[in-house]
Order: sequence, then structure tokens, then C-alpha cells
Amino acid sequence: MNQPIPATALQLRSLIKASGELELSLALIDVPRPAANEVLVRIEAAPLNPSDIGLLFGPADMSGATAGGNAERPVVTAPIPEAAMKAVAGRLGVSMPVGNEGAGVVVAAGSSEAAQALVGKTVAVLGGAMYSQYRALPLEQCLLLPEGATPADGASSFVNPLTALGMVETMRREGHHALVHTAAASNLGQMLNRICLKDGIALVNIVRKPEQAELLRSIGAVHVCNTESPSFLQELTEALVATGATIAFDATGGGRLAGQILGCMEQALNRTAKEYSRYGSTTHKQVYLYGRLDTRPTEFVRNFGMAWGMGGWLLFPFLQKIGPAAAEALKQRIAAELKTTFASRYAQSVSLTGMLQLDSIAAYNKRATGEKFLVTPN
Amino acid sequence: MNQPIPATALQLRSLIKASGELELSLALIDVPRPAANEVLVRIEAAPLNPSDIGLLFGPADMSGATAGGNAERPVVTAPIPEAAMKAVAGRLGVSMPVGNEGAGVVVAAGSSEAAQALVGKTVAVLGGAMYSQYRALPLEQCLLLPEGATPADGASSFVNPLTALGMVETMRREGHHALVHTAAASNLGQMLNRICLKDGIALVNIVRKPEQAELLRSIGAVHVCNTESPSFLQELTEALVATGATIAFDATGGGRLAGQILGCMEQALNRTAKEYSRYGSTTHKQVYLYGRLDTRPTEFVRNFGMAWGMGGWLLFPFLQKIGPAAAEALKQRIAAELKTTFASRYAQSVSLTGMLQLDSIAAYNKRATGEKFLVTPN
Repeated sequence: MNQPIPATALQLRSLIKASGELELSLALIDVPRPAANEVLVRIEAAPLNPSDIGLLFGPADMSGATAGGNAERPVVTAPIPEAAMKAVAGRLGVSMPVGNEGAGVVVAAGSSEAAQALVGKTVAVLGGAMYSQYRALPLEQCLLLPEGATPADGASSFVNPLTALGMVETMRREGHHALVHTAAASNLGQMLNRICLKDGIALVNIVRKPEQAELLRSIGAVHVCNTESPSFLQELTEALVATGATIAFDATGGGRLAGQILGCMEQALNRTAKEYSRYGSTTHKQVYLYGRLDTRPTEFVRNFGMAWGMGGWLLFPFLQKIGPAAAEALKQRIAAELKTTFASRYAQSVSLTGMLQLDSIAAYNKRATGEKFLVTPN
Repeated sequence: MNQPIPATALQLRSLIKASGELELSLALIDVPRPAANEVLVRIEAAPLNPSDIGLLFGPADMSGATAGGNAERPVVTAPIPEAAMKAVAGRLGVSMPVGNEGAGVVVAAGSSEAAQALVGKTVAVLGGAMYSQYRALPLEQCLLLPEGATPADGASSFVNPLTALGMVETMRREGHHALVHTAAASNLGQMLNRICLKDGIALVNIVRKPEQAELLRSIGAVHVCNTESPSFLQELTEALVATGATIAFDATGGGRLAGQILGCMEQALNRTAKEYSRYGSTTHKQVYLYGRLDTRPTEFVRNFGMAWGMGGWLLFPFLQKIGPAAAEALKQRIAAELKTTFASRYAQSVSLTGMLQLDSIAAYNKRATGEKFLVTPN
């Protein structure tokens, strides 16, 4: 806390060049001075979420990455397939900072009383560029952590907790009563499972490995279906009959899973149908694709009637839609249950220079369940 | 009008047997007596819409159809692929009447004054089982046709006109300002084009043949894109830039077209984007799949950001959603513009027995543009 604030500090940058190359490096930037209603946070911990990795690497082929620079200022370059260049036209030549969220200690504050009150406190922060040693942020992007919580405890206070709560809130607002979630053994999935257990909401967890199913059952999950099971569709249908779930959040996005969920929902609804309708069940069935773990095209056979929807789901537009008061209520719940419902676990920590080592890139780019990394910039 | 009302009359039936066979036949049924608020209509004309053909044949393989029965009461049978039997489990063994809509002359009426007032009048009717010689229907399912309109003029007063108006209404209610329509040279598509021209709404018409493009241009369509053009995606993007359309109604349902429309909408929106967002444009892009002309699976690459939706769209739930007053307003517009905006054309007429001839089945099952059939049961 009493360390002097340096004039300059490191910030990780991701740059895509028009030549078709990704370049990751550390930039030396001026440490900002907080405005009246801002605080300066020394970032101590920031998670490597899938969405961060998406911005960090873009569509680059990281298996072709090469290391350069020196030990203190490493540089990593990797080729970008030509077909993918069109999708990143908007960021060509722009050196972008990365890292949606993090946590740290307030080392300086602007003149406002509210800002001054945070000096010396540990806060979670949201707002991009968190793979930096220092960040100045407006108060509304900070969440004061409860007494005794470390930056590592609070590093993932926003993206996963708000996403999981946002799914439950979306379910309620759109008139559904139970949920389906894929890639359900993820940090986010385990969190959603804890929320649903606590709130008494039936949840169907879809995973792709037996050990992920075991993990979820060991933390109290009731309905767990494994896509690799030969009777997956039947098991999923039974779980949907048992829960009545008619909304799903799919982290994979590609392949046939989203359509299979809609098809099984329709089968489950038709179990109780009283008469034949060639247009299928009249109950609306919805799948939101919120991730891209499966990069293949999305494909479905239309065997689920006409009352269905598929769409993208993203945290920030959702928060805008519900408005600041509702969003603040979600944040207060997160702070209150930070070490229980919203606890995150990390397999490893890496420094900013550590992030630019080829072996750690290979490790965190796997985005494997239970293998989440925490960045410690200072 | 002064013909005597028979005691029994013919009604076309479609039956799927558990043995995996479709059977089409004519049943002799009692002519119903209208209740107080009903009228008895001698059906003179009923269109063969794609949705009727869907119920009529189900998933049967009509290339394997065989003719039986006799000249007055023909019977057609056709095999159903085993894989398709699950989808029709709900209608097995149920002899179903067919025909969503039609028009005819009121030959008897119930005791109510409103019903009596219709005796001798020509009305359009909605309510299923229209491939019948006589139908009793409640008044609210009848639309009095304007003086001089024939049953053939009014036979298609509901499904296509309400669907086309429903698309425009959905566009308005969901905050969009221009439309995209596929299979746009269809009877429905030409009608939608007339509505949009009349109402000053920009419409992007997607077709798959140069002669369909010509046809639409000849009736005033401004934006016509042909999927077979080597630069289809580019032409579609330009039309979307010109119109600002962010909602589409897709009659094909299968293949890649729906996803391509979303992708081109995104490209069009990004033309005016001010800064790079890895989540794509924040403008919601929507495609409704309302038909199944393309029976392949639906497939898309997710190259249109996160603000998108795909879903089923069906006329009857839409009418329920807007409520009876709004639906009645649409019907009054249809009656007023029956011979202009909402005019339908038919290539051929067939009797009920004619519907059960293998050569006419082969003809109307093509569902080809400009080849619509009109059934004349009496």
C-alpha cells in the first residue's frame, strides 16, 4: 500500500497487422492520474476468461506462434489464416489492451469523497485492459470487496457471476422455470449450479466427459447428461421431462448441440400433448448461444415445431436492458456471496511476462475445465 | 343457391397408418346443421397452399404413390420412410380432413340475425377441412366478400394475405424498418411486394432463378437478389445497405440461406461502424423461418456478432399475440383490397376426385412458382 506509484507501468497489448500476423507484447504506458470520481487500482489479479482469450489471440493459429523480444519484454507472433482476416478488419493496426476484469488495491483516488473513501481498500474492477499493472477506473466500475477478501478472491467478481445470474434472470424474465446449460463443468457452470441449488431452480447440466459429470454430481448437481453417452438424447429428454426446462444457454455455439436441445425439449413437451399438431408444441423453446467453444458451423434439423428461437446472448447488452438498479442488485449479491456461491478457482498464476511464454500460452489456450489461469501483473 | 342441400357430402381425408402407409380418400360425411351463430357454406374454391400439402402428404414418399379405389371414390396410398414415422406419431390412425381456407356460398344459417343476414352471400372462410363440399362455420371465421367477388377471388383471403400483413406488422412491432423475404416470387411474395410498394416499405426480394427476378421487377420490385448469382452475397449486402433491413422472413428454412442473410446484414451494418467491437454490431438482426421449402438441415457460420436471433414464425400464434381487434383490422384491409393487393392467381383447378389422381398429385406437389392449384369441391 505504501509502495510508491511509478510514472510508467506495463500493459499487455494484442495487435493484428494487415500483413496477417498477430503480435503480443508489453507496452510501457504512463500511469494515469485518477479523475475526481475515479480511483487508481494496482491490479493484483485478473482471470483469463475465454472471452479474454478470444480478444487476445483473435483468429491466430497459436500452434504456429514464435517467441521473440527479450526476457523482460517478450514478444510473441503468430500467423492468421487468410480466410479469417476479413472478420478482424475492424481491429487491424490497433494495439489493443486486454482483460475484462480483475481486482487490486486502490493506491490513489480523485478528489470526490466517495473515491477517497476507497484508498487502501481491495476492489474488484470491470472495464477492460486489466492485464495492466495500474488502471484508473470510475467508481461505478468498482465493487468494494468484503473484509478479508483478497484480490484473487475478487478477481472474477463480474464476468462469470453476472453471466450466471444473468442466465437465471433471463430465464425468469422470459417466462421459463428451469434451465439447461452446456459446458456445465466450467467455472461458470459450477457457479450456475450453486446459484440454482441455492435458489431452488431445476438445472440440466450438459457435459462431454464422465469425470465432468462426476465433478458436478459431487457438488450437488441433480441432472447431468453426457453428450458422449450413446443414449444422450434420451437421457436429455428425460431430464427435460423431469425439470420442464424450455430455455438453454449454450457455450459451445457450433455443431449440432443447440438443435438437439430444442429437439429434446419438443419431445419432452409432446409427452403431455393432448392432440396432434403438425406445427408442434405451442410452448416457446429457446436456446441462447453465448460462447464459441465449438468453432464448427451451427447445424440443426427442424424437428421442434415452430415455437422456437435461437440467438446470441451477451452480458453487457443484458445489463443495459435490465438497467442500473437491477444490475446493482446483482452486484450486491455477488459481494455478499463472494466466497461461497461465487467462488472461483484457478489452476495457475502467471505474470504479464509469463503470459507471453509459448508453454503457458499452450496451457491456457486449451481453456480446459479446471485449468483456469490467473494473471498477476504486479 | 336454390340447389337442395344434400344429406351427405364428400370430404377429403388423409390417414397415416401405423403400418407406415399414407392413405388419401374421400369420406362420405353427414352435412352438418349450422348452430345459432354458424353458417353452412357450400365450398366452391379452396387453394392448395404449401401448408395444406404438408398436412395432406405428411412425410410420405409420393414418388411411390399408387392409385386404387374407383373413379368416383379414388384412393391413393404412398409409403412413409421409417425414419419419418416418429414425427407423425401424434396423428397415427387419425383420419384427418385437410384445407385451411376457402370460399363459397352460404346456403343455410343458424337462428341468429347476423347468421341469417349472410344467406346467399359469398364468403371467404378459415378453419380447416375446406376440401369438403359443405362446411358449417362460426361467423367469426367468415369474411363477407365485396359485391362482385367470386369464390375463386376470395379463396385465398386468409393464409397468404394475413401472413404477408403479419410479416409487415412483425417488422413494425419489433422495431425494424425494412424487410427481407425469400422465395419472393411466390404468390405470397408477390403479395408482400404489393403491400410494401403500397405502404412505402423497402423490401429485399431473394429468389433463385433469373425469370423469378424478372417477374418481380416487372411488378415493381426494386431490390431483387438471385441466390444463383456468383456475387449473390455481395448483391445482398448492397441491397441491405440501401434498405437498412434487419429482419427477414425465410420460406426455405433449410440450408445456409438464413445464416447468409444474417451475415450480410452484419456486413451492411459494419459499413457504418465507428470502432471495432469483437462482439459485432449491437443492432439486433432477426431471421424468422416460416416455411420448409428446403428440407435440408439449417446451417450457419456465426459471422454476425452476438446481436442476432433465428426462430420459427407461424400465422396463428401471431394473430393470437396481436389480439382480435388488430386481427380484424387486417381482415378488413384484405376485403377492401381483395382484387388488387391481395389478388391470387391459380394455374389450374381440380375437383376432389381430381386431387386424388397421380398425375395431378405430381403436378401440385411440385409447389412450383406460378403453379398454384385451386380445389373446386362442387
